[in-house]
Amino acid sequence: MESEIAHSGENCRVLISCADGAGIIAAVSGLIAERGGNILDADQHTELATEPGTPGLFFMRVVAEVGTGSRESLQTGFDELAARLDMRISLHWGDRPDRVAILSGPETHCLSDLLWRWGQGELGGLVGGDIVGVLSNHDSGRAMTESMGVEYACVPESGGDRAAQERAVGDWLDRVRPDLVVLARYMRVLPSWLVERYDGRMINIHHGFLPAFAGARPYHQAHARGVKLIGATSHYVTAELDDGPIIAQETAHVSHRDDIVSMKRLGRDLERVVLARAVRQHLERRVLVVGRRTVVFE
Amino acid sequence: MESEIAHSGENCRVLISCADGAGIIAAVSGLIAERGGNILDADQHTELATEPGTPGLFFMRVVAEVGTGSRESLQTGFDELAARLDMRISLHWGDRPDRVAILSGPETHCLSDLLWRWGQGELGGLVGGDIVGVLSNHDSGRAMTESMGVEYACVPESGGDRAAQERAVGDWLDRVRPDLVVLARYMRVLPSWLVERYDGRMINIHHGFLPAFAGARPYHQAHARGVKLIGATSHYVTAELDDGPIIAQETAHVSHRDDIVSMKRLGRDLERVVLARAVRQHLERRVLVVGRRTVVFE
Amino acid sequence: MESEIAHSGENCRVLISCADGAGIIAAVSGLIAERGGNILDADQHTELATEPGTPGLFFMRVVAEVGTGSRESLQTGFDELAARLDMRISLHWGDRPDRVAILSGPETHCLSDLLWRWGQGELGGLVGGDIVGVLSNHDSGRAMTESMGVEYACVPESGGDRAAQERAVGDWLDRVRPDLVVLARYMRVLPSWLVERYDGRMINIHHGFLPAFAGARPYHQAHARGVKLIGATSHYVTAELDDGPIIAQETAHVSHRDDIVSMKRLGRDLERVVLARAVRQHLERRVLVVGRRTVVFE
Amino acid sequence: MESEIAHSGENCRVLISCADGAGIIAAVSGLIAERGGNILDADQHTELATEPGTPGLFFMRVVAEVGTGSRESLQTGFDELAARLDMRISLHWGDRPDRVAILSGPETHCLSDLLWRWGQGELGGLVGGDIVGVLSNHDSGRAMTESMGVEYACVPESGGDRAAQERAVGDWLDRVRPDLVVLARYMRVLPSWLVERYDGRMINIHHGFLPAFAGARPYHQAHARGVKLIGATSHYVTAELDDGPIIAQETAHVSHRDDIVSMKRLGRDLERVVLARAVRQHLERRVLVVGRRTVVFE
Repeated sequence: MESEIAHSGENCRVLISCADGAGIIAAVSGLIAERGGNILDADQHTELATEPGTPGLFFMRVVAEVGTGSRESLQTGFDELAARLDMRISLHWGDRPDRVAILSGPETHCLSDLLWRWGQGELGGLVGGDIVGVLSNHDSGRAMTESMGVEYACVPESGGDRAAQERAVGDWLDRVRPDLVVLARYMRVLPSWLVERYDGRMINIHHGFLPAFAGARPYHQAHARGVKLIGATSHYVTAELDDGPIIAQETAHVSHRDDIVSMKRLGRDLERVVLARAVRQHLERRVLVVGRRTVVFE
Repeated sequence: MESEIAHSGENCRVLISCADGAGIIAAVSGLIAERGGNILDADQHTELATEPGTPGLFFMRVVAEVGTGSRESLQTGFDELAARLDMRISLHWGDRPDRVAILSGPETHCLSDLLWRWGQGELGGLVGGDIVGVLSNHDSGRAMTESMGVEYACVPESGGDRAAQERAVGDWLDRVRPDLVVLARYMRVLPSWLVERYDGRMINIHHGFLPAFAGARPYHQAHARGVKLIGATSHYVTAELDDGPIIAQETAHVSHRDDIVSMKRLGRDLERVVLARAVRQHLERRVLVVGRRTVVFE
Repeated sequence: MESEIAHSGENCRVLISCADGAGIIAAVSGLIAERGGNILDADQHTELATEPGTPGLFFMRVVAEVGTGSRESLQTGFDELAARLDMRISLHWGDRPDRVAILSGPETHCLSDLLWRWGQGELGGLVGGDIVGVLSNHDSGRAMTESMGVEYACVPESGGDRAAQERAVGDWLDRVRPDLVVLARYMRVLPSWLVERYDGRMINIHHGFLPAFAGARPYHQAHARGVKLIGATSHYVTAELDDGPIIAQETAHVSHRDDIVSMKRLGRDLERVVLARAVRQHLERRVLVVGRRTVVFE
Repeated sequence: MESEIAHSGENCRVLISCADGAGIIAAVSGLIAERGGNILDADQHTELATEPGTPGLFFMRVVAEVGTGSRESLQTGFDELAARLDMRISLHWGDRPDRVAILSGPETHCLSDLLWRWGQGELGGLVGGDIVGVLSNHDSGRAMTESMGVEYACVPESGGDRAAQERAVGDWLDRVRPDLVVLARYMRVLPSWLVERYDGRMINIHHGFLPAFAGARPYHQAHARGVKLIGATSHYVTAELDDGPIIAQETAHVSHRDDIVSMKRLGRDLERVVLARAVRQHLERRVLVVGRRTVVFE
């Protein structure tokens, strides 16, 4: 974990992915040193090629302290480096917290946990995230949300026009302008046009150990199958249901004594922790997506 | 855990299942007291009916110390009770260790672990199990098996007649007369006629978190899906592959740093522990099968 | 876990401890059957004597459904049984929720978690507990407490007379009349006269893996020692600091990357879960104290 | 985990520690690139100063593939860098496996596990370690050790001259010339002159969650205290008993049903895994000692 003790100067987080090759770390760290930065934390991973003759994949995360004034110089340097070495580089300056919008459903344990962590300053070190709005199809989370001064929008579902409801969700998100959308037990499948709009910026919590028990009522599925562990999975949302790249997972032991009510209760503790971890890791720019998998620099 | 400090007299383990109703525990414990037994350990579970108007299911495990001479009296009493209350009751006297046959494959980590635990006296308290033979389709486990004085049979597979090989496995088991058959990373699907012969007495270890990653190459499947936990599952073998009632499961964290080689290495530690736990629980008569699920009295 | 599906009739939980001997389960279950009760859940444990010639210890928990009208008959029957067999028996009828008072400190993660679980109906099945008052030496938990309609008393500490403050806490508890007192990160040592008043009814959460890191600043101690796991421990409070019988413990992995700030953050998640589990187990009458240890029927 | 897929060329592992400052990563990675190396894996950690005005501590581990011929050039370059920037740098070439000597006691579960892992090729990737000798004060591990072609020396203890026995152990180690000494449940305290000789190269497994339950009979201590988790701790040996820098720890749940026999059985599974992990991490040059703590690059 990155320390939360403050530093002077500005901090920059750099996420890099490219084909593997010699000298990449030297090029990145050399650039930072040369432009007056100091690396506080660096982590790197090389995924070896599975086919002979093809290059591996290189991933890196750097947190650097940058002397005032060198910000533009560093940005330009990284732009050049990215072009020269065919890298994907994203720089994130801790200027402002990310805007986080939450879509919630009738069950509010994940929503209340995220609100609480935000109040505790737990939503990501070095600026992190601010919760800027909550939308739900139920009213159950209104009091806790509004008590923290956050807007709560309710789009009820019963008997309505589904496409119109989906457009209302899209319009609300457009207005709230989130950097990250968190599905905190939002129990509806979103249309693909909306999912694509937040590609790589929409995180869901599934109350099952994916890929087992995808879809509806995972605790009922788990109970029927007689598993001895239940799980929770946080992942980026993609067009295919419960199939996006996994960020975090946990399991907990259950026994024959646990009926579905008890599994749900144990599961709530898992879901809260797993979703909060994934959100934090995303906000701290620790996650890189590689096809259906993720690299998470912890 | 049942203590392993010795008692005088004989020990009897009783496993009971029946429709729920009033007075069952009183009838069972009253019978034992009346015939001179003393209950050392009792555990009970009631599964409530999911449909109104139908009875629940009752499960019980009792370990009783029985004064010399009352064995027949107790057996008769339980026979009468079972008939009267429509119960399934099995009594297990610690007269002799169960005979355990192991089917192994080229990878020997589970085989060597079971042999080691047997040598340590870990294969079940109160008599437990004895390994009486190992059959494999490879020669890799011969030395470790024979060094412990256990027969090692090898039925090679390459180029042969599959039905003949399966008959050879069946014949070998017939000759060895096991009470329990353990598939310790035996990588072949057994024919249904053989599976049925050992119904409720054949335990497999699957190197994945079932029901996810059933079938072949589960670590490859897990790596491709990008899970953050790998698992191992021990279950009774049924005619459908990797679908039998689960006895024990565990998971372990993996990260992007773990390739398939590393997953396999971490998985070996899981598989050994999970298989040994399931075998021990079966031998100690802690497991009752309920459809696709199990009750495991720990 | 006891199912939370409702039954007809009244429910009674019975906790029993006595010297081991033949026929105890038969006597208990026979009594219940004879007086018209039906055992829903029974768990039992015998602790064998460590010295030859002395008896072991017998512990049992029974949940029984009792036909209307048989309550007094059952109570009388158990009184007689207790006298005859020299047992300690406590009966708990689910007439009313237990009254739970919380003492909190400046950090409110455990307080807010207990309030949230209470709101969710998680504080114990079959009636369980009601939070009837919160006392703190800081004002940080006032808003969340009062928003749930619960009294919040503040006894500030700075510069005051410690004995007077302790009397104020005692007086407040006298007035609130709790069945259970929960120390939810209340960071002050209570006087022994107050601890004794709530013997076996006061639960603390310690933010360390006891017996390691007792006393002040356990995360600082853990960091200085360089442990690879941090822990949280919930225990009954006794006159000696952090020394009472342990009800629940959990650990979580840390690495060199975790400084004290990060350990505290990870620890908050442990503490919430461990304290809630212990409170729930106590309220459901699952815990029996045996000297410095506990029997917890899960 | 470092992949075990082979590379061309030689591999070098570099461990670095120094005062923190700007440009260190650039200097290290620049040197490697310039002398024809390619970084396969790099991990870095900065420990911020706790006192203002003092520098933090910098730690780094690099695995680099080095073209044939550049070995001397790289060694010289690192020597110069270490002198210039006041760094501690150790280079480890995968020329030959480390020589591992094991001291064992009457209980052989850790010994047999290490022998088995060695046979499986699990004792560290990129060359790793070879077990070159086992010394014990009992004969219980002789057969398993000699069956793998490893020397087994027995120095019995009963009734002898303790100083003479310690000299015999020292002489044996002198002759075996280990790079690493593993205390695999060797139940004797070694004299400080011997411990100092293998400073930073001697690893012990303690069957308790240190710092709790240091010293003798930790499972008895744990049972008497009534903990709900037992643990195992692997650490470098220092002059003070059970006080050296911790490399790895794990815990497992226990309940009131687990007596000391059962705790020992569960503990054996923990001890094997924790010791093997620490040995592997040491052999792969993943561990740096910082006072009483360790940095473990996983």
